[in-house]
Amino acid sequence: MQTRIEHDTMGDVEVPGDAMWGAQTQRSVQNFKIGNEHMPRPMIRAMGLVKKAAAITNAELNQIPTELSKYIVDAADEVISGKWDSQFPLVVWQTGSGTQSNMNCNEVIANIANQKLGNPLGSQKPVHPNDHVNRAQSTNDSFPTAIHVAAALQINELLIPAVKRLRDTFKRKSEEFQDIVKIGRTHLQDATPLTLGQEFSGYVQQLDNGVQRLEQALVWLYQLPLGGTAVGTGLNAHPDYAEKAADELAKLTGLAFVTNPNKFEALAGRDAAVFASGALKTLAASLNKIANDVRWLASGPRCGLGELYIPENEPGSSIMPGKVNPTQCEAMTMVVAQVMGNDTTINIAGASGNFELNVFMPVIAFNLIQSIQLLGDACNSFDEHCAVGIEPNREKIDYFLHNSLMLVTALNPVIGYENAAKVAKTAYKQGKTLKEVAVELGFVTPEQFDEVVKPEKMVYPNVK
Amino acid sequence: MQTRIEHDTMGDVEVPGDAMWGAQTQRSVQNFKIGNEHMPRPMIRAMGLVKKAAAITNAELNQIPTELSKYIVDAADEVISGKWDSQFPLVVWQTGSGTQSNMNCNEVIANIANQKLGNPLGSQKPVHPNDHVNRAQSTNDSFPTAIHVAAALQINELLIPAVKRLRDTFKRKSEEFQDIVKIGRTHLQDATPLTLGQEFSGYVQQLDNGVQRLEQALVWLYQLPLGGTAVGTGLNAHPDYAEKAADELAKLTGLAFVTNPNKFEALAGRDAAVFASGALKTLAASLNKIANDVRWLASGPRCGLGELYIPENEPGSSIMPGKVNPTQCEAMTMVVAQVMGNDTTINIAGASGNFELNVFMPVIAFNLIQSIQLLGDACNSFDEHCAVGIEPNREKIDYFLHNSLMLVTALNPVIGYENAAKVAKTAYKQGKTLKEVAVELGFVTPEQFDEVVKPEKMVYPNVK
Amino acid sequence: MQTRIEHDTMGDVEVPGDAMWGAQTQRSVQNFKIGNEHMPRPMIRAMGLVKKAAAITNAELNQIPTELSKYIVDAADEVISGKWDSQFPLVVWQTGSGTQSNMNCNEVIANIANQKLGNPLGSQKPVHPNDHVNRAQSTNDSFPTAIHVAAALQINELLIPAVKRLRDTFKRKSEEFQDIVKIGRTHLQDATPLTLGQEFSGYVQQLDNGVQRLEQALVWLYQLPLGGTAVGTGLNAHPDYAEKAADELAKLTGLAFVTNPNKFEALAGRDAAVFASGALKTLAASLNKIANDVRWLASGPRCGLGELYIPENEPGSSIMPGKVNPTQCEAMTMVVAQVMGNDTTINIAGASGNFELNVFMPVIAFNLIQSIQLLGDACNSFDEHCAVGIEPNREKIDYFLHNSLMLVTALNPVIGYENAAKVAKTAYKQGKTLKEVAVELGFVTPEQFDEVVKPEKMVYPNVK
Amino acid sequence: MQTRIEHDTMGDVEVPGDAMWGAQTQRSVQNFKIGNEHMPRPMIRAMGLVKKAAAITNAELNQIPTELSKYIVDAADEVISGKWDSQFPLVVWQTGSGTQSNMNCNEVIANIANQKLGNPLGSQKPVHPNDHVNRAQSTNDSFPTAIHVAAALQINELLIPAVKRLRDTFKRKSEEFQDIVKIGRTHLQDATPLTLGQEFSGYVQQLDNGVQRLEQALVWLYQLPLGGTAVGTGLNAHPDYAEKAADELAKLTGLAFVTNPNKFEALAGRDAAVFASGALKTLAASLNKIANDVRWLASGPRCGLGELYIPENEPGSSIMPGKVNPTQCEAMTMVVAQVMGNDTTINIAGASGNFELNVFMPVIAFNLIQSIQLLGDACNSFDEHCAVGIEPNREKIDYFLHNSLMLVTALNPVIGYENAAKVAKTAYKQGKTLKEVAVELGFVTPEQFDEVVKPEKMVYPNVK
Repeated sequence: MQTRIEHDTMGDVEVPGDAMWGAQTQRSVQNFKIGNEHMPRPMIRAMGLVKKAAAITNAELNQIPTELSKYIVDAADEVISGKWDSQFPLVVWQTGSGTQSNMNCNEVIANIANQKLGNPLGSQKPVHPNDHVNRAQSTNDSFPTAIHVAAALQINELLIPAVKRLRDTFKRKSEEFQDIVKIGRTHLQDATPLTLGQEFSGYVQQLDNGVQRLEQALVWLYQLPLGGTAVGTGLNAHPDYAEKAADELAKLTGLAFVTNPNKFEALAGRDAAVFASGALKTLAASLNKIANDVRWLASGPRCGLGELYIPENEPGSSIMPGKVNPTQCEAMTMVVAQVMGNDTTINIAGASGNFELNVFMPVIAFNLIQSIQLLGDACNSFDEHCAVGIEPNREKIDYFLHNSLMLVTALNPVIGYENAAKVAKTAYKQGKTLKEVAVELGFVTPEQFDEVVKPEKMVYPNVK
Repeated sequence: MQTRIEHDTMGDVEVPGDAMWGAQTQRSVQNFKIGNEHMPRPMIRAMGLVKKAAAITNAELNQIPTELSKYIVDAADEVISGKWDSQFPLVVWQTGSGTQSNMNCNEVIANIANQKLGNPLGSQKPVHPNDHVNRAQSTNDSFPTAIHVAAALQINELLIPAVKRLRDTFKRKSEEFQDIVKIGRTHLQDATPLTLGQEFSGYVQQLDNGVQRLEQALVWLYQLPLGGTAVGTGLNAHPDYAEKAADELAKLTGLAFVTNPNKFEALAGRDAAVFASGALKTLAASLNKIANDVRWLASGPRCGLGELYIPENEPGSSIMPGKVNPTQCEAMTMVVAQVMGNDTTINIAGASGNFELNVFMPVIAFNLIQSIQLLGDACNSFDEHCAVGIEPNREKIDYFLHNSLMLVTALNPVIGYENAAKVAKTAYKQGKTLKEVAVELGFVTPEQFDEVVKPEKMVYPNVK
Repeated sequence: MQTRIEHDTMGDVEVPGDAMWGAQTQRSVQNFKIGNEHMPRPMIRAMGLVKKAAAITNAELNQIPTELSKYIVDAADEVISGKWDSQFPLVVWQTGSGTQSNMNCNEVIANIANQKLGNPLGSQKPVHPNDHVNRAQSTNDSFPTAIHVAAALQINELLIPAVKRLRDTFKRKSEEFQDIVKIGRTHLQDATPLTLGQEFSGYVQQLDNGVQRLEQALVWLYQLPLGGTAVGTGLNAHPDYAEKAADELAKLTGLAFVTNPNKFEALAGRDAAVFASGALKTLAASLNKIANDVRWLASGPRCGLGELYIPENEPGSSIMPGKVNPTQCEAMTMVVAQVMGNDTTINIAGASGNFELNVFMPVIAFNLIQSIQLLGDACNSFDEHCAVGIEPNREKIDYFLHNSLMLVTALNPVIGYENAAKVAKTAYKQGKTLKEVAVELGFVTPEQFDEVVKPEKMVYPNVK
Repeated sequence: MQTRIEHDTMGDVEVPGDAMWGAQTQRSVQNFKIGNEHMPRPMIRAMGLVKKAAAITNAELNQIPTELSKYIVDAADEVISGKWDSQFPLVVWQTGSGTQSNMNCNEVIANIANQKLGNPLGSQKPVHPNDHVNRAQSTNDSFPTAIHVAAALQINELLIPAVKRLRDTFKRKSEEFQDIVKIGRTHLQDATPLTLGQEFSGYVQQLDNGVQRLEQALVWLYQLPLGGTAVGTGLNAHPDYAEKAADELAKLTGLAFVTNPNKFEALAGRDAAVFASGALKTLAASLNKIANDVRWLASGPRCGLGELYIPENEPGSSIMPGKVNPTQCEAMTMVVAQVMGNDTTINIAGASGNFELNVFMPVIAFNLIQSIQLLGDACNSFDEHCAVGIEPNREKIDYFLHNSLMLVTALNPVIGYENAAKVAKTAYKQGKTLKEVAVELGFVTPEQFDEVVKPEKMVYPNVK
């Protein structure tokens, strides 16, 4: 492999000849051979956006020449597009401020720009990675800004649409199933009836709420650290820079970014990420409930609850032919377990800032972006390969409904709590129906029973 | 010990003669000898409030006689007041719906009322624990309503005031310290300066944000499950009951309670609690950062950073005289660890609902209430015994500031990044000051150095 | 309330007149009004044991007069017995070293001893809380020693016997049920058969393993920090003290305590607790699986799986008569959620030591002891009120077994994987039995089918 | 892209023309577009080893022709070597049993073998992925066996050597630094002295213990599920298969694999992984303590503790020249946060088995392998780029030691606890040395002070 020599403040470094990165990235490659978890695509895109916004703002404020700014913007656009992802070789397990990834981005953008200007890789001119690309920035404000931008974009572009899509499917199902009366279950035990549509309406509500909670979390992600520079004071930045750069990022993304009103909190705390993870784990809890319900209701085919059919997507087992497993539910619940673990990681990392900086930023970025991605993808996959195809097994639903003892509750207001309990218990012991027993014990006539115990009248507030 | 015989649908039970509880509570006492964690006071109060609101609403809707309602309300008021806490002997580790604690409350209220009406304990008349006290309720809607009421009250009455109090102290300190320029620290390494007031302003912002996030979480706690009865359908309740009962609870507490628009979500999900715990753990992360900063800045007295004095509250060690430890910081960070563990518990529990019910409610209630209580108490304690007494050690702060190499950053715009780095490194190696080296290397004159390197001019955006 | 004046190195303190504690405890009462979580009984007992062992050892090594040692031992015995628990008013949320609880114990023991010697409370003579009771100790070695002693005792005395008891019940059930062939379930879907005894044998194995893992964890808890004094060097202790005191604790408890070979690790790390919590959460994972299986297999009575009967311990619902819930399973799974949250707390706390000390000790003690207690109590409760009464519903088990399509696997070696799959699918679609379809499709004769598809021959390795 | 048509029991599937995988893998590619987390290399290697061992054992037991077995073994060897990693396109978020990855492996091996035998891709003969490669296996026993093999290999080959290497470095440092007396710190406050060698010896002990705990965890990973087939009964396997296959895996790997004595536990529980994660998080807690100590002791250069020098590996900041950050410590502590989060994930997943199977296996595999890899790599990186280069700053160490007030403890036995406290407090208030004050107050003569207060005599048990 051909190499070239680059240098930084510590001296010379050998860099692959065609690498778009420079000395500082190369040092990190060599010093941090830990795991395979690279800085994720949404972070690279977000770093590109930050560099672009900074370059535009710096030019406006006469901090860098307009000419150079244009080249930086063009180069940043290429980074944003994903064209240069292969030039971001660094792993998450590096310096805790993300400095090396920030420099990686500075170096790549400088090299792209300088190449277009006819200069060789590593020339650092006319566009210098620090003096121009990183102008008016420190990693300490630029990297957490990228975290906020990346997370906010992914939540808006991937996650919320995915949740809404799944929500819409459940909403449609809920309406389709609105007249299917079924047995309710509490404590896994038979309970009073509800409609299948009502059951599904709970999922719709959970997902609607989930979206709203994500929007509550976004409020904080929209507050950007940019402009705090090294310790929050804004040293080496123009007084108007913070606000203008945030406006620029808002313009570039269409999201409601603003400058964080307190840059000391913005650099040293990562509370916005911790809270966002709190919204994500809440959504995960909802999805766990939903996926579990679906797989239990679809359990069987003959020895389970079997009230729902779910799509057959693949042969279920390498040894047992004919078996179809709730694999989308399983993928979803595994994603939930991951998101909850990621939340623990983010909590620990977010609580661990000291003085003017939190140095657990790459691990926060990695886990936050992963949680968003996994939840978004899993909602889409679950929707497409499972939810849209859910159908009721009406025969099974009816069988359970009419076999249940819990319709006895309908007798409660008529014959009293203790008599009703007696009917249920007797039917249970003797393997009889509620009607048989209620009549035998002389509590009601058959006609009264039929009048009172109508499952379809037990699915709403019925007391006058 | 004298006993009396009570009975429920399962048969006779021997109950302590003077117990205000009845058969079902007694069965739980006997069946669940697990741990010592009792249903906390705020839950007892909240259950009392729910029973009171239900009784008032049921009377209004002609579901129970007004006369009985009045007695139930009076009895509930006594439960609310704490007078009968000793009559709530059940532990958290019981049925997962909280049925036994709900029945405990029904039984106690019925007995209080019946006693006042001249009837013996256990008579169940004229006020019946199920037919009257629990009227139009199931544990399944009543108990989670109590969780929401308890958490919302504790957040409003204890936690938010405590956070604001600590916030106000830091705000005052931040203003007092606004002109004290000190060294910044990132990566635990010396960085560019800021004022002590700026550093503290970050804490103020974190706590302000924390209060706002609690308010975001309260929105969901304000949505009440009451009226869903057993499975969310509202069976055996009046159609107007849910809304009226929520209004009543709002009136009784002064909080913005409303009826949850979807009772299936309300019973089967506990997402509001999961999200509230997400806000609590975010606040915990902020407090961890603050408490750690305080103890590190107060470390010493002679071999640490020593920039702050904190109050001496107690002798620090049983063997080392004269030592004073940051014990309030330690209590706070232990509380943080607890709240983060509680969050894991709540996540697991909240994700584990099935079909029409979540049966991890007591453990959710216990952890949520504990987290609120601990954070509230810890903020108050930290404020009173630590924050209000924080004073700067100006001598130490000045010593570090002027000994630091990082003021070199001020030279960056004048002599360039690499020359500035050279000055810092040389000063570091030779044990000299920045000024000596910068002049020796011919980069600036002494006058220029003094003109450029003014710490007090390095604490705001300074570029034109 | 009458008070008396005590003093410590910081000055005078007003203490309740009849309190057995002294100045330092009182300061903590006043300075840490946080929560209600008191130092648990096993910790008080363990602190008593540590003081007793220290007094005996100090007397042997001529560090304190034999006469005083005897009084300390007698007083410590009373503390160990639980007689003075009311005199330990401190909460967990105090100094992170547990100094205040250690002093609480020193003060109580000194006062008990001095009272017996005819001196008033607070006299501090002839037995001085620091110079005699705390002799050759610092909180920093004494308190973590108490954590180890408390946890090791509770694991040995409460938890392991409880796990074994439950294990023995399952072992007995496993043998009783060894010939009951039932449908297996994987992915919640019908699978090849096994016996109910085999299914329960998995629980037996999990619990057997759980006990062995607890014993692996005990190895580390048996290593005691005592003798490290303030920072691990053993300053102010006799060179033979550490080993002798550990021997004494081994003698007093019957457990294999030894002195930790490295006192710096012993004071600054709490890894033994972190690992013990790792064994506890593993046991919790096993119990979660078991409790979930039991409640699902007992789900119904008519609309669930219903293969098991579990004891009816209480009326299940306040609104639905006749319903019996798996409440012991619910208590168990709530305990599991708590133990897993406690594990997170212990992880964070255990990872947070600095230099010569970990100052998260009370929170570690609290959570570790709580996890042990809850798991032990829950195993006992689950055993007594659920496991011992589990009975098979043979009718339901048989119904599922013979209705299942998965017996088709037995045809695999005879007619090949794909043909077997075809039989199963056809039977599923047409609602027929496997036998009907297999014969109709011409794959086997009815006789061959019966010869091959024998569930009772499908429950062991059957290939020659 | 050219494609070919493959089929499975569900019908035809279009597969990339040159793909070594087949229909079932392809279905998973299409059905699970979730995230980018692929089955990690150690899992692919382990699946290859399982297939190899199964083929050898099946041939020995006359279950498959020896000729075919040889081709399977050769193909498996290539999979083991990593040659075909690109042919394992599946993500973690698939069916919870790992069936699709198991089939992926079966399909790839069959295709490799069949190609060598001159047959086209997808021919499924003479080597059939199910009938031969997967012979006597179900995913349900084969996949968890692969998890155990992968984790055990990675712990033995990567993690334990890495921990030992770091341990050895600290051991060497501990010996080098054995005479450097320094101030101790507890509660971040100055405490009695110890040697730097003693401080480092605590790290050595933590890492030694960590290795032993990993070995305790390995005991359980060595127990293999293989032979349980679909539900633990061993249906469709030879009675000798389980034991022989485990022996074969032991032979192939040199590790102490045995067959799990209870296959029901082996399939339905994943306790061995949960416990192994418990050992990993304990090691993580140790490493967190160590990395934190190192970065705090190296804090500065001028405004921190500065007792240690650590290697300069890269420029620290993009804005502040001359600053060197503890980046290896930061990478390590981020890894710790990840491992602790992974532990939460594994706990939730491991607790979630139902009946005969745990369907959270891919997420367990992913997190377990990631934790092992990250800890191993981070130990190596920390060792190479930080620990080996740690040097004491003797000047700073001496300065703190002699400036400290805590040497006063040495006076304790001579002038008593309260007088010693008075000396320390006075020195603190008046900014004087202990010696000055002790003499002024008349407690000792200067000669006595020097005789008594010798730091180098305060670093071991010194009482006679």
